[in-house]
Amino acid sequence: MLNSADKLLFTPGPLTTSRTVKEAMLRDLGSRDTEFISTVQLIRKELLELGNVSKEAGYESVIIQGSGSFGIEAVISSALPADGNLLIVINGVYGERIAKMASIHHIPNSRLVFDENEVPDMGAIREELKEDKSITHLAVVHCETTTGIINPITDIGNLCAEFGVKYIVDAMSSFGAYRVDLAASHIDFLISSSNKCIEGVPGFSFVIVKKDSLLACENQARTLSLDLYAQWRGLENDGQFRFTPPTHAILAFAQALKELKKEGGVEGRALRYQKNYKTLSEGMKALGFIEYLDHANKGYIITCFHYPDHPAFNFKEFYSSLSDKGFVIYPGKLSKVDCFRIGNIGRITDTDISNLLSAIKATLITQSIQLSTSSQKI
Amino acid sequence: MLNSADKLLFTPGPLTTSRTVKEAMLRDLGSRDTEFISTVQLIRKELLELGNVSKEAGYESVIIQGSGSFGIEAVISSALPADGNLLIVINGVYGERIAKMASIHHIPNSRLVFDENEVPDMGAIREELKEDKSITHLAVVHCETTTGIINPITDIGNLCAEFGVKYIVDAMSSFGAYRVDLAASHIDFLISSSNKCIEGVPGFSFVIVKKDSLLACENQARTLSLDLYAQWRGLENDGQFRFTPPTHAILAFAQALKELKKEGGVEGRALRYQKNYKTLSEGMKALGFIEYLDHANKGYIITCFHYPDHPAFNFKEFYSSLSDKGFVIYPGKLSKVDCFRIGNIGRITDTDISNLLSAIKATLITQSIQLSTSSQKI
Repeated sequence: MLNSADKLLFTPGPLTTSRTVKEAMLRDLGSRDTEFISTVQLIRKELLELGNVSKEAGYESVIIQGSGSFGIEAVISSALPADGNLLIVINGVYGERIAKMASIHHIPNSRLVFDENEVPDMGAIREELKEDKSITHLAVVHCETTTGIINPITDIGNLCAEFGVKYIVDAMSSFGAYRVDLAASHIDFLISSSNKCIEGVPGFSFVIVKKDSLLACENQARTLSLDLYAQWRGLENDGQFRFTPPTHAILAFAQALKELKKEGGVEGRALRYQKNYKTLSEGMKALGFIEYLDHANKGYIITCFHYPDHPAFNFKEFYSSLSDKGFVIYPGKLSKVDCFRIGNIGRITDTDISNLLSAIKATLITQSIQLSTSSQKI
Repeated sequence: MLNSADKLLFTPGPLTTSRTVKEAMLRDLGSRDTEFISTVQLIRKELLELGNVSKEAGYESVIIQGSGSFGIEAVISSALPADGNLLIVINGVYGERIAKMASIHHIPNSRLVFDENEVPDMGAIREELKEDKSITHLAVVHCETTTGIINPITDIGNLCAEFGVKYIVDAMSSFGAYRVDLAASHIDFLISSSNKCIEGVPGFSFVIVKKDSLLACENQARTLSLDLYAQWRGLENDGQFRFTPPTHAILAFAQALKELKKEGGVEGRALRYQKNYKTLSEGMKALGFIEYLDHANKGYIITCFHYPDHPAFNFKEFYSSLSDKGFVIYPGKLSKVDCFRIGNIGRITDTDISNLLSAIKATLITQSIQLSTSSQKI
């Protein structure tokens, strides 16, 4: 088992992680143990650094048990006061999910919906903020994993600052691979998770938050488990979690942070992912595949490809064939277009991408699918 | 690191787990991978068996990301309809926590509070159910970790059946070490977690539920992440989680279930824990410590001891000294009495307990604390 050659994951997460990250889980630490508590403190400090902020500059970080969505729901259901109003800027399913959360918690909200292949229009956001003075908070997804599109979080943050609106950024699949400066982008709440670009294992999400915005959450939460303020207060009081923490996932994350530093931090990691993306993009183009996004904002986290226009193409068979060869890709999630996705993140290199491309080529041949580089999208 | 001799955990969890359970985490499986999906299916089936029920008999199991409390909140905030009324039978902090959850979700609730060292009075529960016809659900903790007391869940279940009330059992720290028969005890919802007596690592909770009671939860949830029905529906539809699952913790749990079987199931595990408890109880008595509970219901999960009546005793120093020797015990949580707790669960044997007792003895000597076996509680 120790030398299992698991399939490589070209997905939005859980991702392939390093051997050493997983080995960090070969321990059982008590949740009140001083070593564990100091590990948590270090992680919380380093998360602030990754967001280019610090405790001294008035920012805090909070770890929330559960998946990334738990962290988003903790923020949405803690940050909005009873008389708040949340504007959600949407161009994919993760934006839609935030809207769904707001509605479940009976939080007044409005939605600015853009096409999945479009970056949000700044003029339209400005117009909305200008028109509707009841808006108190704005939420947007940084890298919308639906398509891989990178939304302009600083431009939107400037608008939030201009209109005095608190700003929530879902940076789930971008944080650690894109430089984010919370202060410069006027971000009040940023959420990401353990198993994305920091390359830990799944088990928790984290929130980096402006302290005065966090303090305003006191007694506002609509749940016990996802109470952002109470969770922070617990961690600050004695360094302990209110409820059992995923100790092993946290140890893995501490190791993952070390490995991120060793790779040169966000910039170093971004270089590897960019190289992965470049290899993928060029290789897929050479094979006759067409990317769904066609502009500068497509980013290097995950790439969305049209199903090829060939009668013999069947995604399920394509997926299974690649999986059998040891490569796990990801289905699409677009509302109107048939596509599939390939992730560039996790402990994978451009050599792994090249091997994936070879496997795709072999699969196309086996399935008698010949694509020309002039092949059109459906 | 592979041979690290971590401290032994004599706590209510996270616990000491076996080497092989932790090694099961040395893999990265995709959340849509067929091997992962079949592992989840197997776990869900075996959880039903542990509750002495089955899908065919009309029961289902659901895995919820996060700690045990997340599972409890998922049930409380999903099971109660808008016009429901929850009676909570309380004799410790975990019962209080359920009441707190109900209140946060604005769920009408009443509380029957008993002393922390008393089992709930059946007559009082019967009286309450008879008097208040608005009660639709009753919740109780099986092993109240505050003291280690074992509450009579079958007797209470019989009352629930008699009065037509749905029955919620928090079996967090007992499930896997006490035989529970959901049908015989008339339990509608039973909640436990990955890092208790099944001896997995922390990362998720699970719910075993009567199917018709689960179906009644549809559209009733007050959150998105903790929607019990939607979580089940997702797992049933395609075997996948709605949101990223803690894949590594789930692999560890699958291994833990194998090891539970190998030990002889619940009965085999109970024997080891009973032996642990017997060794602990006798050894502590010989050292002059007095147990907080003095009746048959004290159980063998975790044991609560009075602070000894000696001027030199300081719990913080006592705890640190034991921790330095490699033994992690647990502070008390009683409202009126000073006590500490020692857990008998996890991958520990009576030899480990004997070593703990030796360390306690050495600590008392170092701290010049001489207790007589007639030493009185404070």
